Amino acid sequence: MPHETTRVAIIGAGPAGLLLSWALREAGIDSIVVENRSQEYVLARIRAGVLEQGSVETLTRLGLGDRLASEGLQHDGIFLQYAGERHNVNFNELIGRTVTVYGQQQVVKDLATAHAAAGSTIYYEASDVAVDGLLTKHPCVTFVHDGAQHTIDADFVVGADGFHGICRASIPTEEITLFDRSYPYAWLGILADVAPSSDELVYALHEDGFAMLSMRSPVVSRLYLQVDPADDIAQWSDSRIWEALHTRLSTPGWTLNEGPITDKSITPMRSFVASRLAYGNLFLVGDAGHIVPPTGAKGLNSAISDVTQLAAALTAFYANNETLLSSYSETALARQWRVQQFSRWMTEMLHTSPGDLQTGAFDYRSQLGQLDYVTHSPLAQRMLAEQYTGLLLQ
Amino acid sequence: MPHETTRVAIIGAGPAGLLLSWALREAGIDSIVVENRSQEYVLARIRAGVLEQGSVETLTRLGLGDRLASEGLQHDGIFLQYAGERHNVNFNELIGRTVTVYGQQQVVKDLATAHAAAGSTIYYEASDVAVDGLLTKHPCVTFVHDGAQHTIDADFVVGADGFHGICRASIPTEEITLFDRSYPYAWLGILADVAPSSDELVYALHEDGFAMLSMRSPVVSRLYLQVDPADDIAQWSDSRIWEALHTRLSTPGWTLNEGPITDKSITPMRSFVASRLAYGNLFLVGDAGHIVPPTGAKGLNSAISDVTQLAAALTAFYANNETLLSSYSETALARQWRVQQFSRWMTEMLHTSPGDLQTGAFDYRSQLGQLDYVTHSPLAQRMLAEQYTGLLLQ
Repeated sequence: MPHETTRVAIIGAGPAGLLLSWALREAGIDSIVVENRSQEYVLARIRAGVLEQGSVETLTRLGLGDRLASEGLQHDGIFLQYAGERHNVNFNELIGRTVTVYGQQQVVKDLATAHAAAGSTIYYEASDVAVDGLLTKHPCVTFVHDGAQHTIDADFVVGADGFHGICRASIPTEEITLFDRSYPYAWLGILADVAPSSDELVYALHEDGFAMLSMRSPVVSRLYLQVDPADDIAQWSDSRIWEALHTRLSTPGWTLNEGPITDKSITPMRSFVASRLAYGNLFLVGDAGHIVPPTGAKGLNSAISDVTQLAAALTAFYANNETLLSSYSETALARQWRVQQFSRWMTEMLHTSPGDLQTGAFDYRSQLGQLDYVTHSPLAQRMLAEQYTGLLLQ
Repeated sequence: MPHETTRVAIIGAGPAGLLLSWALREAGIDSIVVENRSQEYVLARIRAGVLEQGSVETLTRLGLGDRLASEGLQHDGIFLQYAGERHNVNFNELIGRTVTVYGQQQVVKDLATAHAAAGSTIYYEASDVAVDGLLTKHPCVTFVHDGAQHTIDADFVVGADGFHGICRASIPTEEITLFDRSYPYAWLGILADVAPSSDELVYALHEDGFAMLSMRSPVVSRLYLQVDPADDIAQWSDSRIWEALHTRLSTPGWTLNEGPITDKSITPMRSFVASRLAYGNLFLVGDAGHIVPPTGAKGLNSAISDVTQLAAALTAFYANNETLLSSYSETALARQWRVQQFSRWMTEMLHTSPGDLQTGAFDYRSQLGQLDYVTHSPLAQRMLAEQYTGLLLQ
């Protein structure tokens, strides 16, 4: 019955958990990571693909920037498309900041490689993971690994275990409020083995719904379609997907190149924020504490922002300054609510509203007016740029 | 059976109709105005109170700026209030533009005085007003006045007769689409004989709903409360109104001064835009073509914008340039949709959503995040300032 002691026990070996463990290691603070999935599963999980400039800076500062620098695709801006016309919003020209296209899978891979080289302790395929003593000075994590019951005693437990994780669920329900909102649409996402047909991401509003052209590499395209949340992926043949993409992304003199679809799935959209990211000596980071709709590319970046703040707060704590740690929840949530409203703004500007036809028709034209304003007002473009490339930590 | 001929027959003697007639007179173009209400009714109608800088410039340029200059209250900005804190957004500092508080009633009074001095032809209390021959070169307006049947032959007919007017309704339904959206709230507005308790307008989001402090003069306050559209004004005693205003506008160290309420009413909120503002030789201006929710103070200003564009287009037409007139509808609607989205943005940022509690709780916090961003990002403040003080004509 192995019994270990560490400073920080981290639940979840996704990007948030692995990055926190790595940042703490760089600060000389021991941690152990516990994950219920296999490493193969974690490495294969396809998620976000756009890193804010601040996220790139964080990864680089932590020594994780080599492959990111050589393989990441720096983007100066995006295209906003409506009424069949494509408008470039150049963040770099507007405010001197950029974003980088680099799949979350790659970030996780870089972290896994770094941890393996450093000999970090990460338990994959841990079952029956539970936390206890959160309100005491000696919280612990228990789990079963390779048939053996494990216990980790720690100063702190961090929940980096995602929306469905056990950490947030271990906070008594009367001590936490969950704010959430669902949307009447979902994203059908595909990966295709074809060079991206645009050098910048294209966000398009079309009467049939939202569509997006993104990429993972110079030879892999990532494309999205707004669909009904009740839609079944089986109803979307490859040819139907391409046809919808051609229709919605169409613009004069431009061709969308097709290629073999290697992955397709439908993801519902939601907004979710917990009322607290701290409970005793438990702290939540990333999806465990909040979810955004993907339109503004804020999911992974919010996790990196949380981790950056929490790592700094824990580092300060061990240097005898508790201020940052006691304000972590409030500070991270204040930033998160700003990110939430941006994500919702981007989402509602670019998706058609099913339901009431009368309101839908008005809303669609109102969205065209909004896009017309945003693509023609330098101030509005700079505001979009400031939020898309990442609000600075306060 | 009086039969008259003029260049432009204008239906409606509200601010849009009177201003268009005045602007045409300044350009040497004859017009006649026909209004179904009495002049007393039109002069007594309480409406908007905030003029964009461009509206002030237009009125001044047309020689209507004397009393506006001496009695209008120039405002450098507004306050946005949320979570009990008030934040100043100073348009003048941000972008060097301002707004002026001057009641629509005063604008109408100045126009009526100018028209009376100039001997303009304005028929008040005209009944059975109808238009005909809109697709011909000789449209006409018919009406009954003082018991006599009148006919006006004109080159053009302009509908400045508001949302319920006969002009838009005279366009065949298959030739026009009406886009509209209702909101799940209304404004209860009061006039009170008391000096305004704030030197700038206050827009407040409170958990109970929106509240606003505005003014009409140094001794008259104008205040608003978000209420249910189904609410009956009889259920809102003066004391209940003041109590709600105190609660929603409360901020530390500040007092809301009460005074006798001289007017109170509930106005539902809607967004509405017609698909066209031109049909043959009929043109629509102001509320006849579009309605905004009042939060961004865009109703009267949009009418002034339409009139400015249409007067310039008609002036060009009589100088043998038809270009502006043929593009009037498209140009005015493009600006209007930008104004619509701004009005909706301001409205949804500041009003609580009744209905689904779960979504409402999320939305309220999302609005707090939005207000937090808007009041802290100089770019977002400048974007608000640019739209509030008035998008420039293109």
